[in-house]
Amino acid sequence: MSHTVEILSVGTELLLGSIVNSDAQALSRELSGLGLNVLYHSVVGDNPGRLRAAVELARSRADVIVTTGGLGPTCDDLTKQTLTECFGRKLVFHPECAREIRAFFARMGREMTDNNLQQAYLPEGCRVLDNAWGTAPGCAFEADGTYVVMLPGPPAECLPMFRERALPWLARLSEGVIRSRTLRVFGLGESAVEDKLRDRMNQLQNPTLAPYAKEGEVELRITAKADTIEAADALIAPVEGQVRAILGDLIYGADVSGLPQVVLEGARARGLTLGTAESCTGGLIAKRLTDVPGAASVFKGGVVSYHCEVKAGLLGVSQALLDERGAVCAPVAEQMAQGARQALGTDLAVAVTGVAGPDPDERGNPVGLVFTALATPGGVWVRQLNLAGMRARRDRIRNLAANHALDMARRWLAGLPPA
Amino acid sequence: MSHTVEILSVGTELLLGSIVNSDAQALSRELSGLGLNVLYHSVVGDNPGRLRAAVELARSRADVIVTTGGLGPTCDDLTKQTLTECFGRKLVFHPECAREIRAFFARMGREMTDNNLQQAYLPEGCRVLDNAWGTAPGCAFEADGTYVVMLPGPPAECLPMFRERALPWLARLSEGVIRSRTLRVFGLGESAVEDKLRDRMNQLQNPTLAPYAKEGEVELRITAKADTIEAADALIAPVEGQVRAILGDLIYGADVSGLPQVVLEGARARGLTLGTAESCTGGLIAKRLTDVPGAASVFKGGVVSYHCEVKAGLLGVSQALLDERGAVCAPVAEQMAQGARQALGTDLAVAVTGVAGPDPDERGNPVGLVFTALATPGGVWVRQLNLAGMRARRDRIRNLAANHALDMARRWLAGLPPA
Repeated sequence: MSHTVEILSVGTELLLGSIVNSDAQALSRELSGLGLNVLYHSVVGDNPGRLRAAVELARSRADVIVTTGGLGPTCDDLTKQTLTECFGRKLVFHPECAREIRAFFARMGREMTDNNLQQAYLPEGCRVLDNAWGTAPGCAFEADGTYVVMLPGPPAECLPMFRERALPWLARLSEGVIRSRTLRVFGLGESAVEDKLRDRMNQLQNPTLAPYAKEGEVELRITAKADTIEAADALIAPVEGQVRAILGDLIYGADVSGLPQVVLEGARARGLTLGTAESCTGGLIAKRLTDVPGAASVFKGGVVSYHCEVKAGLLGVSQALLDERGAVCAPVAEQMAQGARQALGTDLAVAVTGVAGPDPDERGNPVGLVFTALATPGGVWVRQLNLAGMRARRDRIRNLAANHALDMARRWLAGLPPA
Repeated sequence: MSHTVEILSVGTELLLGSIVNSDAQALSRELSGLGLNVLYHSVVGDNPGRLRAAVELARSRADVIVTTGGLGPTCDDLTKQTLTECFGRKLVFHPECAREIRAFFARMGREMTDNNLQQAYLPEGCRVLDNAWGTAPGCAFEADGTYVVMLPGPPAECLPMFRERALPWLARLSEGVIRSRTLRVFGLGESAVEDKLRDRMNQLQNPTLAPYAKEGEVELRITAKADTIEAADALIAPVEGQVRAILGDLIYGADVSGLPQVVLEGARARGLTLGTAESCTGGLIAKRLTDVPGAASVFKGGVVSYHCEVKAGLLGVSQALLDERGAVCAPVAEQMAQGARQALGTDLAVAVTGVAGPDPDERGNPVGLVFTALATPGGVWVRQLNLAGMRARRDRIRNLAANHALDMARRWLAGLPPA
């Protein structure tokens, strides 16, 4: 029987909505990958009574409890004390932790305040989880059949602490594996994808097949449980084949981080360079391309031509055209893409011009009207988009516009018609 | 006595970590603003038994239950059925909802599949919450002293549904108000901020004062409860004054969305335009500036000069300098900022060059070495940063670098030394 997990996050800032619980997401992915069943997430504030009740509940319905938050130096951080008490333990000063904390501040060239030494108190007999990414150490222990792991809250600490410190300790609980493969679909909504796949989805038990809507994309996750990685992968492969037969080239990748990665890999494989020219997306495409480590082998640079002056000056878009038709039209998108190829000296360039909102532009073009273009050594293509249907917000329009521009490039690189 | 709330999110995709629970964050902010106390977030998967138990628990410990997710057309969406049963009701077909759903698809020019009509079944006697942002309607009802609101999961639907549909229904529960004011601090860590403010924080009951660490920033939230908005604001004002006296110009704004907004407003107030030149941040600064609606009145554009060729070609950085010292040094940052001012025709320009990682650059410059620059009509300034201390990840280094560049501009605009 596989172990069940509850992720218990502690922090009033979560309940006030000041921050999003990205730790719970990151840990869920990791724990599922270990073959553990995450059955519950819960969040309580910095309140000892409610935290204690939440711990008792978690104990009663899961056998692994992973907490996030409340290990730091600030005075509302009560997790460690409360958890330690719930499991009948005491906090003990760990001098080696105090040394680590001092060393961390020395390395950062920052002055250490005394409250930071609170963090060196940990449950007696626990496994200390050193924090090389911040100051608060975590800990892990087993008590009466419950496995407890406490991790710091800041996401830049929580995930590496889990991967490099907690995971080796938890590996003992892993029986069998859960493997999943995620196919990414661009160009079709969630219901339409599900409608095409319903018959397959309803028949399947292991692996399972589930669609998840993302902004403008659908992820199809195939998940199998088996004794070994190989056996799980062997369950996944035929289902992937069936899904690919149904959705065809709407699937742009498997187990990829997104369109930027696929475009960069496709261009790299063909020895081509890429540039961008962005108006309404304002640098978003370049940002997303350069989120990917190693982008520099393909991506040379981009021009954010938010004003027409910059479209004409740096990208060579015809001033007469801009005067006559304004910035939001197909020929401007074309000239931006061609101009970017030339100005940046790249093989390919994508361009976007449109109205992201919240208001129509000065020529009355509606919010959501966007033109994306792709310039290649073999020609230039344009897509006209109307992204306004869902009373779309500015960030959604910008994301979708960026996805369409990148999708044109990925299709061309895959030998498909880009527009 | 003020009402207590549990936000119950339903979806296996949350427990697998496929998506982050941004709905819980957004709703928490809104509910707190209404004066309701959000005490719990919980997440369960698409499992009727565990969902039922979660609903019973929520009922026992909160008097308002807000659910997200599980109203859509896909076959694993069970929330509506389960909640309706838990509260002893039945699902009834609402023909007016079916009409709305058909109209939505017609408006979007998309074909409607039959499963979408499942969404027109809602609890008898409920208040229907029309969904103008998607297809699944929500609902609200009161049963035995518990107030239940069900909202769709997609964030682009959940928040507007709450604000425009659920909020008027929930307003009856609001007694008194909670108001908060958030001061934003750049340039000091969370512990250091708390250390400076500890005496004040410990004394305060109403309003409360709490620091929250964000990537490279600290938010200080002052929260007051009172009968009226005016009374709450009157409690907040003197505490804000005390905090400002302690932290001075490290506070860059109050109730602002971030540095981009402050820079844009500062430049707009002085009639100045802004441009960007980005190497390792790869468009992130331009993207963040253009996230803000109305950025075009200040921001003319930017150059993403990821390759040296683009730094020399479009920004006029000296080729001899690039050959001799490489791209990551103070004079290149200076020339990038000055070159951007000229190429883009702006009054101000910020520039960033550095090593975001994961690997050192080809000259052996370490990950995290970053130079940011600001060019103005009155001169140019450079900051040298070492952002590697925390084994920082690529995205954290890029965010911090962008913040530093923007902080230089905001300081100059406020009449402070920029570097």
